[in-house]
Amino acid sequence: MPKDVYITAKDNPAVKRYRKLRDQKKARRAEGLFVAEGLRIVADALRYPAMVQQLFVTDTAWAHHGDALTAAQESGMLLRISDAVGETMHDTAHGQGVFAVCRVPERAPLETVLRPEGRYLVLCGLQDPGNMGMILRTADALGIEAVLSAGSCELFAPKVVRAAMGSVLRVPVYETDDALGLAAMLAGREIVSFAAVPAQGADVLRDGLLGDGCAVWIGNEGSGLPQDVIDACGRAVTIPMSGGPESLNAAMAAGILMWEMRRQ
Amino acid sequence: MPKDVYITAKDNPAVKRYRKLRDQKKARRAEGLFVAEGLRIVADALRYPAMVQQLFVTDTAWAHHGDALTAAQESGMLLRISDAVGETMHDTAHGQGVFAVCRVPERAPLETVLRPEGRYLVLCGLQDPGNMGMILRTADALGIEAVLSAGSCELFAPKVVRAAMGSVLRVPVYETDDALGLAAMLAGREIVSFAAVPAQGADVLRDGLLGDGCAVWIGNEGSGLPQDVIDACGRAVTIPMSGGPESLNAAMAAGILMWEMRRQ
Repeated sequence: MPKDVYITAKDNPAVKRYRKLRDQKKARRAEGLFVAEGLRIVADALRYPAMVQQLFVTDTAWAHHGDALTAAQESGMLLRISDAVGETMHDTAHGQGVFAVCRVPERAPLETVLRPEGRYLVLCGLQDPGNMGMILRTADALGIEAVLSAGSCELFAPKVVRAAMGSVLRVPVYETDDALGLAAMLAGREIVSFAAVPAQGADVLRDGLLGDGCAVWIGNEGSGLPQDVIDACGRAVTIPMSGGPESLNAAMAAGILMWEMRRQ
Repeated sequence: MPKDVYITAKDNPAVKRYRKLRDQKKARRAEGLFVAEGLRIVADALRYPAMVQQLFVTDTAWAHHGDALTAAQESGMLLRISDAVGETMHDTAHGQGVFAVCRVPERAPLETVLRPEGRYLVLCGLQDPGNMGMILRTADALGIEAVLSAGSCELFAPKVVRAAMGSVLRVPVYETDDALGLAAMLAGREIVSFAAVPAQGADVLRDGLLGDGCAVWIGNEGSGLPQDVIDACGRAVTIPMSGGPESLNAAMAAGILMWEMRRQ
């Protein structure tokens, strides 16, 4: 193994840069990069080689999983590292010693891709990275056209990437801070916005309510959607419940509503 | 405040017992008790006074939330504790200084409560407490008759209780180690068992497939259901996907399938 791609120094510039991208949203934003950890998601990412900029593999990981990573070896993006260096990089208790620096996918502007018959999910003020990741994985599985985030937690934070498995690489995602502007843009494309609320008075989820040309809006885990956003949506939908808890978990509600958008 | 119900010693027997119940499955099993932490779930539990055996409230929590806990004051189950004692009890980073020892609800034997027209969820080998809690919360919201656990993670572990919010107090739950025996018991009551699988060849989830008199089986997060359990179920159901991830998160799949059981 050539010495120049084997890293044993914890303060190696590439290793320091990985940790910075792992820890700092600002760095991720500035560079348009994010980090992914774990064999499964990294192997997933390698199926889209343009997305991966750099790959780090510890000695132990190479011994166990080298076969799954040989494609990367040819590309020049592979950096072998000592196990001790890997210790400074991992973000989970059971890291596997495989780390990638990935490029945030470039997307055409949202206004150019919205389709009147599309099915969209809007996350407005969602704060839990685990929920965000689970929603992206479900959106990917159920074929939602895009996930639009308005003032929610960062889509490419390490915890989101981990919970989303490989889906963060596949689902088109768009971020904005302007929820009302987004509602206006959707309305301008004749996409009907439904505010998901636990309240009575909303349309009860039923056959045919959601389908082509709609966007379902999911709010914050604790406080739900702000009233001005509910008003801007024009319509509201609620999942009928049996009177136990006051509401469903936000990711679960999003999943059931996405399923209804798609089951049509 | 009477001195005899104000605890400042971290090794007070009641406080030590709380920590033991928090940390040891064996202790929970032996005593038929579990612990709950946080204002919301404890306030929920106080609506079922027979369930709460002991309540601990720190000075700070009492100053902020005393109003919500006055009902407990009359009952004699309330123990005031110093903030320092609370520090030794909490299990979450953002504890609120409110802790309860709760009784595992007593249930009639499963074979006496199964109804041929009931709707059941079976968790077989589920290991993630967060998934388990989210499933219990969803089952509660969607009016599933009972959740049956076969060789899954403990239903009354602190992480499950937390993720389930108050639902662990409401949803009838049954635990067994004998998955095949459970399948036979369900079949004996003419309840149709559907194994949830990501595989082709299973019935694709659609209107009318699930409804009265059925039980949906959810498997382990990584490996799914064992083949002998799939065989014992007799039928299998799959949620159609668009080709992104290989499977849905186990809790999400359970949620969509429970919604389909109930939407009929």
